[in-house]
Amino acid sequence: MRTLDEIGICAKAAEPALRVLNTGKKDEALLGVAEKLLTEAAYILEANEKDVLRAKENGMKPALVDRLMLNQSRIEGMAEGIRQVAALPDPVGEVRSMKQRPNGLLIGQKRVPLGVIGIIYEARPNVTADAFALCFKAGNVVILRGGSDAFYSNLAIVEVIRAALKEHKVPEDAIQLIEDTSRKTAQEFMKMDRYVDLLIPRGGAGLIRSVLENSRIPVIETGTGNCHIFVDESADLSMAVSIIFNAKTQRIGVCNACESLVVHEKILDRLMPALKKKLDEKQVEIRGDEKAAAAVDGVVLATEEDWGTEYLDYILSVKTVGSIDEAIAHINRYNTGHSEAIITSDYANAQKFLNEIDAAAVYVNASTRFTDGYEFGFGAEIGISTQKLHARGPMGLEALTSYKYIIYGNGQIR
Amino acid sequence: MRTLDEIGICAKAAEPALRVLNTGKKDEALLGVAEKLLTEAAYILEANEKDVLRAKENGMKPALVDRLMLNQSRIEGMAEGIRQVAALPDPVGEVRSMKQRPNGLLIGQKRVPLGVIGIIYEARPNVTADAFALCFKAGNVVILRGGSDAFYSNLAIVEVIRAALKEHKVPEDAIQLIEDTSRKTAQEFMKMDRYVDLLIPRGGAGLIRSVLENSRIPVIETGTGNCHIFVDESADLSMAVSIIFNAKTQRIGVCNACESLVVHEKILDRLMPALKKKLDEKQVEIRGDEKAAAAVDGVVLATEEDWGTEYLDYILSVKTVGSIDEAIAHINRYNTGHSEAIITSDYANAQKFLNEIDAAAVYVNASTRFTDGYEFGFGAEIGISTQKLHARGPMGLEALTSYKYIIYGNGQIR
Repeated sequence: MRTLDEIGICAKAAEPALRVLNTGKKDEALLGVAEKLLTEAAYILEANEKDVLRAKENGMKPALVDRLMLNQSRIEGMAEGIRQVAALPDPVGEVRSMKQRPNGLLIGQKRVPLGVIGIIYEARPNVTADAFALCFKAGNVVILRGGSDAFYSNLAIVEVIRAALKEHKVPEDAIQLIEDTSRKTAQEFMKMDRYVDLLIPRGGAGLIRSVLENSRIPVIETGTGNCHIFVDESADLSMAVSIIFNAKTQRIGVCNACESLVVHEKILDRLMPALKKKLDEKQVEIRGDEKAAAAVDGVVLATEEDWGTEYLDYILSVKTVGSIDEAIAHINRYNTGHSEAIITSDYANAQKFLNEIDAAAVYVNASTRFTDGYEFGFGAEIGISTQKLHARGPMGLEALTSYKYIIYGNGQIR
Repeated sequence: MRTLDEIGICAKAAEPALRVLNTGKKDEALLGVAEKLLTEAAYILEANEKDVLRAKENGMKPALVDRLMLNQSRIEGMAEGIRQVAALPDPVGEVRSMKQRPNGLLIGQKRVPLGVIGIIYEARPNVTADAFALCFKAGNVVILRGGSDAFYSNLAIVEVIRAALKEHKVPEDAIQLIEDTSRKTAQEFMKMDRYVDLLIPRGGAGLIRSVLENSRIPVIETGTGNCHIFVDESADLSMAVSIIFNAKTQRIGVCNACESLVVHEKILDRLMPALKKKLDEKQVEIRGDEKAAAAVDGVVLATEEDWGTEYLDYILSVKTVGSIDEAIAHINRYNTGHSEAIITSDYANAQKFLNEIDAAAVYVNASTRFTDGYEFGFGAEIGISTQKLHARGPMGLEALTSYKYIIYGNGQIR
């Protein structure tokens, strides 16, 4: 088992080869990895069984065991995901806005890999293949630190990927797994800014907070979404109900689900009964302020804490406002910089909301559930950034690259 | 005097107004600031005199006193710099690559301000006006923490800027100065990630290291440049000598000055005598490896430490290599990710160097001294980033922005 330092050194050693690996070679290797995941499926499933057995013995909740468990069709899904990444355009090498300066220098901005990317994640073993494919396609070396629950699965998947890379004469160290899953080692890993250019945590709020607090490597914060929908006075009622129902209930555990409603007081009495009726289909609990509670029966009174809570559950908070300005101020105070929507038929209010809301994705008349790399047309997604530096919103391959300036001269001096 | 917490709260309170301030209003305010710096020049010079007097009493070196000192023409320079920033195109508001998705959603990427930017800098008081103008033009609030040596100057300049903003009905808190210049307060400031979106240190290596180690706010690393020039076997000799002389001696204390030469052994004997003769004009000390020392008289033997040293002085190290691959490996090992150049007449080697060198700016046949926001045509520069995340190389106004996705729908749900 390699030490953390050895892992860092091996990653750095693989980096120059990855940096200049051409697209054809990368795609060939990715297809080889996809193929090998299938031919070695039995080996991976055997390893996964060990993890699942141990998890059940430890009393893991069935929903979590389900996330951990692999089967033939899930492995096929992993392989298909890798094939899709191979089919995406390579972001590396593109030169943007090359311009001639008055002194004759020709200066362009060339897209290049970031270098070494660290991923810290929790129980889902499919992240292993997925994160590798995206980092690799963008020319990066990846160091993975998966959760202890998926230890055997991750080990097997990484072994298979490395074997496939070797067959395609690509440095195996393009992917390495930190086998020691202790918290102490994770903390040490976060200090390895000498070797790692970017750290992406994928998992729950606790994991992300811990990485943000401890990392000396630049981190991209992902995944927390206290998303709002503002129902403007002029909203189409049936559209509002349909969008809210979709954003709240289509999938409750995801970061782009709607957690809080902000309603203009002039539409409150018309909206609430229709909305309550629809949300009752899925037993959604509504926690509203006094006005919202007065508008329809069965609304629980919200507390201050509700406005800042990402429920990830069949619960929705409702805040009443007297104006769009009040709505925007409320949302900008409590949102997590993820996805916010307005339902309106008023042109000026639509534009005002788009301009003044501070979030990664701002919608007019659509569900917040669309904040997603696939839905945005990026073909893939490594996460959804809720910070403003480097990448914001759904991160596709481009978010895994940097650029450098290339300058063609013929003897210029200053 | 406001506490750090009050400063953070006031900055956040000013942020929404800055975010939507239109270009005309921003430019008007900037021109007002430039004007007021001139009408209040006597007041600023009086304050500066206090700093200069104290600095001399404390035995500050004349070169540093000169950097600290303001006079009428330097204040005119500050005002002119602000007018130039006002004349630059506003990066905020541009919507890139708006596309229609199959479901009819129209998704575009809109450039927006970053939010609150912190700048930690050392003795030069002109940075105060300069950093404010760039941050403000890009719609950001700025919190400045200048050095204690320029305390009175900074206080006066910020007071004048705030007065001009007030006259133009722009929130004065668009700029705030941390008046407590203690190290302890600086350290606390670096932990204010709740209020500050980005921290940019401007100053010497010690300051930058301290910020990198202590900051919980995302930092952009700037300004360290161990820049190399590789003289390929096929180089035009007189071009090589001219570029090296320029990159080494035109201005020695800057981050884009050349610190180290890498020479192909087949051109060493021809290059060194001509180069030595030229560098002697400015008494440049040459520290070479054994081969370089054998090629011409008067070369000091280099130690391992020399390869990693940014001299910022009339000293140049010379490393001999047997191939371009060896040159690239050496440079990628010792460079600081700033600016690297090759002098060559060989097409394949030029392209290879551009592809394989890992640095912010990679040159063929030109001086490294061109790595600069003005020279690159950005019209201004807040610093030169030597990291890969968010911004790399010279940072103009665009580096002080982020983006958000704006999505126009008509009822779409998933």
